[in-house]
Amino acid sequence: MTPRLRTAALLLPLLALLALPGTASADEGQWPPEALATLGEARWAELAARGLELGATDLWDGKGGGLLTAVLGLGGCTGAFVSEEGLFLTNHHCAFGAIQLASTPEKNYLRDGFVARSRAEEVPARGGVGRVRILTRLSDVTDRVRGPKSAFARAKDDAAREAAVEKARSEIVAECEKQPDRRCAVAAFEDGRTYRLMEQTEFRDVRLVYAPPRGVGDFGGEVDNFRWPRHAGDFSLLRVWAAPDGSPAAHAPENVPYRPKRWLPVSSKGVSEGDVVMIAGYPGRTQRYLTPSAVENLESWFYPLRSRTFTDLIEILETEGKKDPDTALRVSGAVKGYGNGETNARGQVEGLARNGVAARAREEAKELEEFLAARKDLPAEWTAAPAELEKVLARDREGQERRFFLEEIERLSSYLSSALSAVRRADERKKPDLEREPGFQERDLERARQQEKDRTLSLAPAATRKALAYLVEKAREASKDAPVRAFDEAFGKDAGRAAIEKRLAEMDAATSLSDENVRLANVDATLASLSASADPYVKLAVGLHADLAAIRQKRKETNGALLVWRPRYLSALEALRRSKGKAISPDANSTLRVSFATVKGYSPREAVTFTPRTSLAGVLEKARAEEPFAVPGKVLDAARAGRFGRWADPVLGSVPVGFLTDGDTTGGNSGSPTMNGKGEVVGLNFDRVWENVAGDFGWRPERSRNVNVDLRYALWMMEEVDGAAHLVKELLPAK
Amino acid sequence: MTPRLRTAALLLPLLALLALPGTASADEGQWPPEALATLGEARWAELAARGLELGATDLWDGKGGGLLTAVLGLGGCTGAFVSEEGLFLTNHHCAFGAIQLASTPEKNYLRDGFVARSRAEEVPARGGVGRVRILTRLSDVTDRVRGPKSAFARAKDDAAREAAVEKARSEIVAECEKQPDRRCAVAAFEDGRTYRLMEQTEFRDVRLVYAPPRGVGDFGGEVDNFRWPRHAGDFSLLRVWAAPDGSPAAHAPENVPYRPKRWLPVSSKGVSEGDVVMIAGYPGRTQRYLTPSAVENLESWFYPLRSRTFTDLIEILETEGKKDPDTALRVSGAVKGYGNGETNARGQVEGLARNGVAARAREEAKELEEFLAARKDLPAEWTAAPAELEKVLARDREGQERRFFLEEIERLSSYLSSALSAVRRADERKKPDLEREPGFQERDLERARQQEKDRTLSLAPAATRKALAYLVEKAREASKDAPVRAFDEAFGKDAGRAAIEKRLAEMDAATSLSDENVRLANVDATLASLSASADPYVKLAVGLHADLAAIRQKRKETNGALLVWRPRYLSALEALRRSKGKAISPDANSTLRVSFATVKGYSPREAVTFTPRTSLAGVLEKARAEEPFAVPGKVLDAARAGRFGRWADPVLGSVPVGFLTDGDTTGGNSGSPTMNGKGEVVGLNFDRVWENVAGDFGWRPERSRNVNVDLRYALWMMEEVDGAAHLVKELLPAK
Repeated sequence: MTPRLRTAALLLPLLALLALPGTASADEGQWPPEALATLGEARWAELAARGLELGATDLWDGKGGGLLTAVLGLGGCTGAFVSEEGLFLTNHHCAFGAIQLASTPEKNYLRDGFVARSRAEEVPARGGVGRVRILTRLSDVTDRVRGPKSAFARAKDDAAREAAVEKARSEIVAECEKQPDRRCAVAAFEDGRTYRLMEQTEFRDVRLVYAPPRGVGDFGGEVDNFRWPRHAGDFSLLRVWAAPDGSPAAHAPENVPYRPKRWLPVSSKGVSEGDVVMIAGYPGRTQRYLTPSAVENLESWFYPLRSRTFTDLIEILETEGKKDPDTALRVSGAVKGYGNGETNARGQVEGLARNGVAARAREEAKELEEFLAARKDLPAEWTAAPAELEKVLARDREGQERRFFLEEIERLSSYLSSALSAVRRADERKKPDLEREPGFQERDLERARQQEKDRTLSLAPAATRKALAYLVEKAREASKDAPVRAFDEAFGKDAGRAAIEKRLAEMDAATSLSDENVRLANVDATLASLSASADPYVKLAVGLHADLAAIRQKRKETNGALLVWRPRYLSALEALRRSKGKAISPDANSTLRVSFATVKGYSPREAVTFTPRTSLAGVLEKARAEEPFAVPGKVLDAARAGRFGRWADPVLGSVPVGFLTDGDTTGGNSGSPTMNGKGEVVGLNFDRVWENVAGDFGWRPERSRNVNVDLRYALWMMEEVDGAAHLVKELLPAK
Repeated sequence: MTPRLRTAALLLPLLALLALPGTASADEGQWPPEALATLGEARWAELAARGLELGATDLWDGKGGGLLTAVLGLGGCTGAFVSEEGLFLTNHHCAFGAIQLASTPEKNYLRDGFVARSRAEEVPARGGVGRVRILTRLSDVTDRVRGPKSAFARAKDDAAREAAVEKARSEIVAECEKQPDRRCAVAAFEDGRTYRLMEQTEFRDVRLVYAPPRGVGDFGGEVDNFRWPRHAGDFSLLRVWAAPDGSPAAHAPENVPYRPKRWLPVSSKGVSEGDVVMIAGYPGRTQRYLTPSAVENLESWFYPLRSRTFTDLIEILETEGKKDPDTALRVSGAVKGYGNGETNARGQVEGLARNGVAARAREEAKELEEFLAARKDLPAEWTAAPAELEKVLARDREGQERRFFLEEIERLSSYLSSALSAVRRADERKKPDLEREPGFQERDLERARQQEKDRTLSLAPAATRKALAYLVEKAREASKDAPVRAFDEAFGKDAGRAAIEKRLAEMDAATSLSDENVRLANVDATLASLSASADPYVKLAVGLHADLAAIRQKRKETNGALLVWRPRYLSALEALRRSKGKAISPDANSTLRVSFATVKGYSPREAVTFTPRTSLAGVLEKARAEEPFAVPGKVLDAARAGRFGRWADPVLGSVPVGFLTDGDTTGGNSGSPTMNGKGEVVGLNFDRVWENVAGDFGWRPERSRNVNVDLRYALWMMEEVDGAAHLVKELLPAK
């Protein structure tokens, strides 16, 4: 019997609940498009009073139209169409991989920036931003995924429940994707209480049009990451190209700039303190309703370990990068990724402590216990949920350090990760397509091939084997109770880091995975042929695969159990909160959301006040000879000479660079358009402040601030510094 | 012929010049006591309007009386009497050495704090705070030092000029010190244009009465050093004891608490934003009238090198300290000293750049050149001064890196520095007492002996030899053109750091300098006996002495030349500024000064505003499990429980901890009483902000902020946390 059956009557629609007047605290809430219509008149009136000139249906009309259809999913980032000929804006850090992959030591677009002087000069963008998705439809599919007649309802154990849900999701997606160029996803809402199908059209001829030098786009680097005041020009401009008939197509000479149905107008007016804004995008994940033990595990184990590990990996890769500029370029993406992850992890540790998230969770858990004990009318499963959930989580924590390091090994781009991916794909191929794991189905093949092509440019064996040796040693230390036999065989039982690295060097010399064609062939290889391979990395991967598969199996069991208990727990929590006149806001799940916010400063700590806007004057203040504060000469000259053109802000007396808003955002919102009350783009979201990183686990109105680049900085760079007036003209056509 | 002879008519009294109405910029100025009377009515009226209830003669009556006689010189720090029975306040970091020297691993006053429950429990304070000096008299001695009939006037070369001045100073001091317990110093004002004799009475039975735990006194450690907002309780309480007749005496059972003529009343009212305050103390050194090349040398060579070197030394000493708690305690003073120096150095590099000090110096030098070219009526020596001064400085910079490292070797407390000091003392002893270098005369013997006794507690050979090996290697790298023969002999010509360290370990095993009595005997040893010593460190010191003596000789020549050209340069600069209606303010020179200021926040950089007060709430915000943010349990408990007693500030709603003022301060002002308009103590100065570190070379009203601990934090700690109400009662007697 599923929880759905017993509790259906009490499962009020979450979105309706959220619209209870006066229950939302300040601007918390990442609203799904279809929820906008349910926010209630009072909320819209309040937003209108703050300067919002649009209504729910202007943003999303429920029929595939509205301003939000101009917002693009970029695989981990967000973008937005800003011209009728398919130009779209996103962050520099979102296009980082594409800029890196287009760069060579001679034509270093990463260092020097890139300007396409004509459409012919626009260069293909690889990586995440190379595929953009336009949302076309949203529909509820809960019944099919876990309704009374579903396989989920009939499943016998946790693993079967997880498999049933995954299979149902895959089937729905496969059906949906029968239409050409359609990309579909079934997203779990409310921890799997409901499911919605998101349909998108994917375009795959994307070209880089403009990128500032890294000294602008990444100004401040990791030092400033998650910090305010901020002075990074974290923007880039790309264009979607399509077949002459406007349909998605691979890069081809006959392609033409795509003409989107909707694009966001660009404002040259900027923002002022107190302005209302909207931030639209694809926030990845928030978890604001965790149990106390889950929060404590994040705070005391996961994030501290992640911080230490990534710190070590960065040092290893950077040390190697310093020896050779080619290696430096090859590892720059990984270093940036680890850097961001490390800073985030430290921010989580600090923020969880500062916001007292664990203490609040404990407090609410205690309240919940008392509430459930008193309310005998509520389903028994709800009453049982807190304790059952904690049991599931406790089981899941067993061996978590071993799992952490093995998964980091799988994640580190290397010959090994390429081989592991091939073995896993071959193993999955034994199942019917729709029962394979997401990412390993037929629909994912093209992406897998592209990944192996891209890998050619990021492979840096001398650096990678040092990182790998470090991770292998750590994984073995964490595996004393369950040794990894594949490591013992590959490296010898008692091999230390140096010995592991030495053996990896021999493997690097012997492997054929340095050949892109061999890696591409492996994407289609059978498990038998891989198992018979003499390649040292493939051999290691075949051995390691069993351990990783066991980890995945355990995770599936956990997930199956969570699918049962998390919705019950959430329902119980919701009942508690409703009894106190409070609501819960929908956790982010990589689907399109919009957040309403205000341009607003804050006080990060006692005796410190941050005002919400920065300018070129602050860039000059921070300018140093060394990275990450080295300002490119042309920018320095223009700023020092006060060559502001038409872009100076009258209040700041200089070109505006960044601004703070109290939007409810998280990872994935990078590149989100920040729109004014008319729906015009005034900036791009690119970060959150340090004090808000732990907002993923608990939103605080006094510290929840996201960081935006002022679009006037981008316009100034193009018009006054880089001589790209033609692009400004396309963004701001004469009316 | 001396400059004094030719330019006497134009050498207007600096102090009179400074009093020109309307010329002082904001509150710049560290005023000598006798200058207060010359500030002018307008200035005093302005201060009165801001809330100052005292006049010049209340502070200093010119006859050895006034509030400023309650201000104490502590050898590098400042203190102030605050009770009629000889209690005085200073910073925790000023008493740090005394607390450290009184601590053992079992009775760790540094970690746990110290409270004398009765007078009998007060423990002798060693180190800098163990000798306190009360100012009794100031008089002008310029004529005797460098007047027309002086040896200076007759000297034939730069070295002789320097020697003549030093001899005259020594003679004046010796004469002055014939009176018992009198300590005298002849201070150079205006770069040696004038000299003043400062007479002080020295007390040498000083006892530690109260110190907070290091987690309060040094809360924030190096992370917060030079930063705002600040939450350190950087205070300590000591008492001067005297012979039963009130005269200074060595520690003795019959001694009684000293009853000072003046002490500062303590206010329990605290401060508010905008309040006027006075900060009185012994600022060490400012140099606001350097030539462009001198500023550039500081910014591009000296401070960067100091920062790098100290960073390395801290790492070396801390790594060793982690191995063993006894070593950690022994090196803690050195680590703290290097830490402070390193942070300061980085602040100077940043601040000099941010404030554009070099650019301003270049600009003013250019103006000066034009001014002097146009003003044919000015003395030729003035016109020549800028170029001549630059020549002197250029010569002085030759070999400066070699000098830097050799002097750091001499400074690092070790067997070697003990031996070097003995050899130098023995060598100086060949001269008549008053011609010996300051610090190496008969009057300095007792201090030298105390230093060797104190050294017993800070010697940590295993850690020190690593630091020494590092410095020796660096010194040799910087000595390629002038190899240090003593190093070649002691370590072998091509010995690297490891080999040097190995040799030092052998020397550590063989030396007898670990014996305090041997070191004490060396204080009185002759050069002959030292030269004959078989002790490896004494042998090395004898060899190294020649190099160090040569460095000192070169410095004397430089100083002699500076004595000629700096006053001329300053006079020329002064004439330029007067022509523009501007004044110059007197550089600090370790004599008593008072600064007028306001409780005031600032903006350190774009989009950031600092308000000027902090509280216990901020301590809780910063509290972490690890140092330097680990808050002692008893403090945490009291703060969390809101046990504020009578010490909560109504505006802050908590116990006030720190406040900012725009005082003109520098190193040496540590421990300075911060007084309200009535002359009552409301706080203790203990630091400057990062943005103000370079204020030593150029004061900026918008960034010149000093950091004070609010006295109410000290009173709260004593009364509410440490049960030391008897001390609060002594500080705040019922009227």
